[in-house]
Amino acid sequence: MQINLPDVLAEVEAVFDEYEHALVSNDIDVLDRLFWNHELTLRYGAGENLYGFAAIQAFRQGRPAANLERTVTRRQVTTFGRDHAVTNIEFSRTGSTRTGRQSQTWVRMPEGWRVVSAHVSLLG
Amino acid sequence: MQINLPDVLAEVEAVFDEYEHALVSNDIDVLDRLFWNHELTLRYGAGENLYGFAAIQAFRQGRPAANLERTVTRRQVTTFGRDHAVTNIEFSRTGSTRTGRQSQTWVRMPEGWRVVSAHVSLLG
Repeated sequence: MQINLPDVLAEVEAVFDEYEHALVSNDIDVLDRLFWNHELTLRYGAGENLYGFAAIQAFRQGRPAANLERTVTRRQVTTFGRDHAVTNIEFSRTGSTRTGRQSQTWVRMPEGWRVVSAHVSLLG
Repeated sequence: MQINLPDVLAEVEAVFDEYEHALVSNDIDVLDRLFWNHELTLRYGAGENLYGFAAIQAFRQGRPAANLERTVTRRQVTTFGRDHAVTNIEFSRTGSTRTGRQSQTWVRMPEGWRVVSAHVSLLG
């Protein structure tokens, strides 16, 4: 198992940047594209547990586009072999004193790198 | 990418059962063994962000052994190829009305299946 192969790490860092930019700008098309389109995809959010791509997609479409801005205060991306990775960040939002955490597991599918599992929460 | 190959899924289900049993019985040796012994291992807990195996190990050693019992109310294990998996559960604890969520990413290392990233939080 080769950890953080430079070319693989660069790929995942780039797709993760794309995700983060899409999140704060509420670019739902990109967010949808970067999650695995499968019933086994799962997202535990700060206020909801979502099972399956359809539930995640519906949640994004129903969410207000305001106040999605956040500042990433710590970031760690780790790749395993050529096709698997985890991304973890801590983040803060204006008006909140609680530290957010976001964890994602990414897999290289035939269609590209996709999030297969995600967990977002506020500390404490 | 082969999803949920039966023999791989059985392996991960078994090691996940082992982890869950060790957690509620506070068998620290087993918990330590099942986390990847590496500085890149990461665990976001309900009340702390831990970076590196040493920090996770120290946290477990310092945690009171009481009230670790929990009931798993939903469980989803998914494997990707032969060497990667995610496990996600919802759980409840006596005396709390909040739903717990635990997400783990597992990788088959030379030494066996290990958790490389974990995130535990309470909903809402």
